[in-house]
Amino acid sequence: MRILSGIQPSGILHWGNYFGMMQPAIRLQEQGEAFYFIADYHALTSIRDPAVLREYTHGVALDFLACGLDPAKTCFFLQSSVPAVAELAWILSTLTPMGLLERCHSYKDKVARNLPATHGLFSYPVLMAADILLYDSDLVPVGKDQKQHLEVVRDIAIKFNERYGIIFKLPEPSIPEATETVPGLDGAKMSKSYANTVEIFATEKVLRKKIMGIQTDSTPVHAPKPIGSSTILMLYKLFANPVDYEQMRADHRRGGVGYGDFKKRLFEAAWLFFEPMRNRRNELLADPEQVNQILKEGTVRANTIAQSVMERVRFAIGLK
Amino acid sequence: MRILSGIQPSGILHWGNYFGMMQPAIRLQEQGEAFYFIADYHALTSIRDPAVLREYTHGVALDFLACGLDPAKTCFFLQSSVPAVAELAWILSTLTPMGLLERCHSYKDKVARNLPATHGLFSYPVLMAADILLYDSDLVPVGKDQKQHLEVVRDIAIKFNERYGIIFKLPEPSIPEATETVPGLDGAKMSKSYANTVEIFATEKVLRKKIMGIQTDSTPVHAPKPIGSSTILMLYKLFANPVDYEQMRADHRRGGVGYGDFKKRLFEAAWLFFEPMRNRRNELLADPEQVNQILKEGTVRANTIAQSVMERVRFAIGLK
Repeated sequence: MRILSGIQPSGILHWGNYFGMMQPAIRLQEQGEAFYFIADYHALTSIRDPAVLREYTHGVALDFLACGLDPAKTCFFLQSSVPAVAELAWILSTLTPMGLLERCHSYKDKVARNLPATHGLFSYPVLMAADILLYDSDLVPVGKDQKQHLEVVRDIAIKFNERYGIIFKLPEPSIPEATETVPGLDGAKMSKSYANTVEIFATEKVLRKKIMGIQTDSTPVHAPKPIGSSTILMLYKLFANPVDYEQMRADHRRGGVGYGDFKKRLFEAAWLFFEPMRNRRNELLADPEQVNQILKEGTVRANTIAQSVMERVRFAIGLK
Repeated sequence: MRILSGIQPSGILHWGNYFGMMQPAIRLQEQGEAFYFIADYHALTSIRDPAVLREYTHGVALDFLACGLDPAKTCFFLQSSVPAVAELAWILSTLTPMGLLERCHSYKDKVARNLPATHGLFSYPVLMAADILLYDSDLVPVGKDQKQHLEVVRDIAIKFNERYGIIFKLPEPSIPEATETVPGLDGAKMSKSYANTVEIFATEKVLRKKIMGIQTDSTPVHAPKPIGSSTILMLYKLFANPVDYEQMRADHRRGGVGYGDFKKRLFEAAWLFFEPMRNRRNELLADPEQVNQILKEGTVRANTIAQSVMERVRFAIGLK
């Protein structure tokens, strides 16, 4: 079973990305042949600064490898290292009804959020279809916001197969089990657009400062603290072992411990949690050739499959 | 000076194509470094039968070479032999405002003429921009229907250059001198959509039959024939030497010669006109390796330039 997932290099990765997307993706690599790519072609619709795109792309590669992406199991590559994906996107677009794209919410939503209304943004689902179909993918993990797009991908594949014979596998969505929502520093969902993020690989100083800055209520030290609304507790659950977590819950209930103390425990747990990944990341940073080599091997493997699928496609439509 | 032109393999080429497009293109190869490609990616928006696409593509290659395209001067290749054009189209699309495409008449016109309203048809100007910009083209011969598209291409190039530095040459349109309109068998403009065409390489039997079937009025043999509305005379002008043409005009004016006789003269002149091209075409047909070799050399040359332009583009936007 081939699992495909694209990762947008749209910023420095934070705890929300880690628990919402990276950890599930890394676990999924045990269940099949994972193909994970860094979606740099897609990123061009929002990142117009070449230095920033390079930095984010490199950062995402480092972070994923540091966090456990296993290149012995998983094919890891840059989207733009397999340009055939753009060729397939054109071919698919000649069969894609305009109405299908016009009905997609995501384009309108993004334009409403002030992204420029470009043709690339509008065409996003067609390139996504090419991303998926180019590798004979069986399973595509998608969040809620991508469910409609995967329907579009299947519609395009069905249309193509009806016209030219069974050329494409129909991918199935994999809706991840409900993951804990990761709150940001202000208690709202952690998200770059809310500027409430904690980066996975923040330095000790920055991490401590960010955690000490988590917004709390004014309950005095001696009094019990509300449990349901405690951002600290919610974040602590992600990092602490169950015993320590229960201890913090009890300390909330009982009172007598201040938020400052809870924050210190959170800092310790988070710092410890990411320690092996931080060490691995430092190793990779010190050995850029290793990362290049991993991406190069991924590129070769991805291109091999892409070329064989494209051969099928080109023959079917009469391009050779 | 690099001259770029794409030829849609959308049918068997006829006299209208020859005088309207092929002859000017073949003359133009004396004035610069011509890059002519067979636009098979574009053709996918209208041709959904792989066997037909293959046949038309091969036919257009043979016809152009037979009619005088000189591979020693001109780089001749299939659009789909340089897949980088699709990659560039994606990159350009991330900077192309939707409004620019929505304002193009051609898409609406084509949909009104019952072509399916696909995303490929809508995106046509972006792929056309990639076709042109990928080869640092200076000059692009365009007919009236393509003038707006070339404006779009220039707009996209300017937008890109403003954002990323001067990466693309701005192509200039070359509006061909007014060519004679070629009337079809029914007197209307010769066009596949009117089913009034005469194919350049029709067999002798078919050619004779088609010419003998040209619609004429009922002027009796002895009477003078109208000159302004004589389809035969207009077609004869394309093929005959000036002396013979003046003779036919005089015979129209004087009367005493029937339309059947004029048709025979037209047949002789047309048959003779295309004789060297027919011979060349038969040679090429007998030696398919020669055509393959020409297209292969064109492909290598086109890819070399495309790769160097793409290197510039990819570096500028941060893809490497």
